[in-house]
Amino acid sequence: MKLSDLGEFGLIEKIRDMVGLPGGNVLKGIGDDCAVVESSDGKVTLFTTDVLVEGVHFTKGFISPVNIGRKALAVNISDIAAMGGKPLYALLSLGVPESTEIEYLDKLVSGVSSLANEYKIDLIGGDTSLSPELLFIIVFLVGESSTDKVLFRSGAGAGEVIFVTGEVGSSAAGLDVLKRGLKIKKYGSLIDAHAKPRPHIKEGEIISSSGLATSLIDISDGVVADLGHICRESKVGALIKESDLPISQECTQYCHINDLNATDFALYGGEDYVLMGTVPEHLYYKFRDLMNSGGCTLYPIGRIKEETGIRLQNRDRVITEVEPEGYDHFKNRRK
Amino acid sequence: MKLSDLGEFGLIEKIRDMVGLPGGNVLKGIGDDCAVVESSDGKVTLFTTDVLVEGVHFTKGFISPVNIGRKALAVNISDIAAMGGKPLYALLSLGVPESTEIEYLDKLVSGVSSLANEYKIDLIGGDTSLSPELLFIIVFLVGESSTDKVLFRSGAGAGEVIFVTGEVGSSAAGLDVLKRGLKIKKYGSLIDAHAKPRPHIKEGEIISSSGLATSLIDISDGVVADLGHICRESKVGALIKESDLPISQECTQYCHINDLNATDFALYGGEDYVLMGTVPEHLYYKFRDLMNSGGCTLYPIGRIKEETGIRLQNRDRVITEVEPEGYDHFKNRRK
Repeated sequence: MKLSDLGEFGLIEKIRDMVGLPGGNVLKGIGDDCAVVESSDGKVTLFTTDVLVEGVHFTKGFISPVNIGRKALAVNISDIAAMGGKPLYALLSLGVPESTEIEYLDKLVSGVSSLANEYKIDLIGGDTSLSPELLFIIVFLVGESSTDKVLFRSGAGAGEVIFVTGEVGSSAAGLDVLKRGLKIKKYGSLIDAHAKPRPHIKEGEIISSSGLATSLIDISDGVVADLGHICRESKVGALIKESDLPISQECTQYCHINDLNATDFALYGGEDYVLMGTVPEHLYYKFRDLMNSGGCTLYPIGRIKEETGIRLQNRDRVITEVEPEGYDHFKNRRK
Repeated sequence: MKLSDLGEFGLIEKIRDMVGLPGGNVLKGIGDDCAVVESSDGKVTLFTTDVLVEGVHFTKGFISPVNIGRKALAVNISDIAAMGGKPLYALLSLGVPESTEIEYLDKLVSGVSSLANEYKIDLIGGDTSLSPELLFIIVFLVGESSTDKVLFRSGAGAGEVIFVTGEVGSSAAGLDVLKRGLKIKKYGSLIDAHAKPRPHIKEGEIISSSGLATSLIDISDGVVADLGHICRESKVGALIKESDLPISQECTQYCHINDLNATDFALYGGEDYVLMGTVPEHLYYKFRDLMNSGGCTLYPIGRIKEETGIRLQNRDRVITEVEPEGYDHFKNRRK
């Protein structure tokens, strides 16, 4: 069997099965945004890593080296946010083609280090290697939280409200803008959503401190795929209301002009790096007020259901089953 | 300027300068085998990561997928050993060409997980990505030690004895065997030294517990290059005695038959993954006895000198300056 038949999530499942269950201090191994290890004093340490490969995750012409470096760290910070944690230490590894200009690497590293400064992350190590063909970047990030605050994908219960902490679809629209060569000012917010995502650390901190949310994830693969992760780990299903999806005006307009489906970008686009989670219905308004008073937004987008599978209620109130498939590097090539 | 002019160590230095000094809890940032962060209870956490790239670090025809996986973890365990630490948790990331057979990946992951089991390391996460051309593997490893035990590259003092914990040169000879297509039984120990290095965790544990050694590193880049790291960080120089280099009989014989220089393999070959360090002269025999009673070997190979630079005393007692250059992916291609 080839990898392209198995897919990325299939491969991760396979590795998870081969590796077996981890030991006593490990609260969460493979299968969440971060691995979670208990420390002695009620604290937990969070570990996450993300690989960015040229031609798979980014195209040099579409994104500046500063933003490539920035994004390599941002997507990892977002994983820490998805556990309700605080990022602390990063290791940066680079695979670099021999012909790469030093100035290019300077910019890339400055993108990493300026975002690290912004989030008070110490860049403490890494590795460098020649890469015969393409540039790749791997950030490993360490964070912390506490046993009573850390949030997993696995806590969602039937009847609960599904929320997101920001607009969805803009990143995918931004990539579409870049692919069409429409690098113009009026699409700036879409391009920025793709090239300079803001990790929702502040949102994650308020959510985890509130003690009200039951599950949390960040949207990297798309609303449907990431909701699929929550549903699978929580053994539940979900109903998304199309009319409730927070899609920006710029994204809606761009899709309208270019005959594209904004809902598709929102549901399947991915790389929004906002948070998505669940909260019991009777706590929703209390939760929303807490978020708002902290300067954060919250959008309800649907409900958790007992019946497994993910369904979409469209604007005409027609309900259809949707495939929980996000961007899978190995299976398809949305980018 | 191109990367090939700067070299790997130049690039690391550059990143180190750009990043600046890390914060309060970080005892060691970029520039040792591991980053070292102080915990609250006298313990330190160690972080290390190594990238293995097809065509740079390994050639599929020369090494089995099981051994590629094994080695990807082994070189990281060796970094933990070089701080006198104990490995705890690993994250495994893979960049995989689309056409890769699942059976190949199964074997690779089994190589990682069986060595992880052997060293009681929990494999708790990672990432997977498509890689358009070549396979790459990144392991991130977390370990622990204590503030009073952890050893750095920076503690060597003039007059001290330089030691290694095992034979050097065999790994480079093993690679030479493979390159010449001489995959035959009598060179088995050389091939194994290259394809299945044993991380010296036990040696590192005895060395750090003894409290006698003043510096420690693992030999990944070669005796001269890694001694260069110790000398630079400790602001000293060194004299190596050629006649004292522990070179295996198999390596000596192989070099003799094939008109190769075994001393060159020992000094510049790299990838031996034994430990090298320094100990004050008056403590050497006590130190050696401790190592021997723990079932470990120790070879003195030279002395630390006040005068900077690395010199070699050959078998005719002639002393020459040697260039502290190991394997640099960006500058030359010894492999």
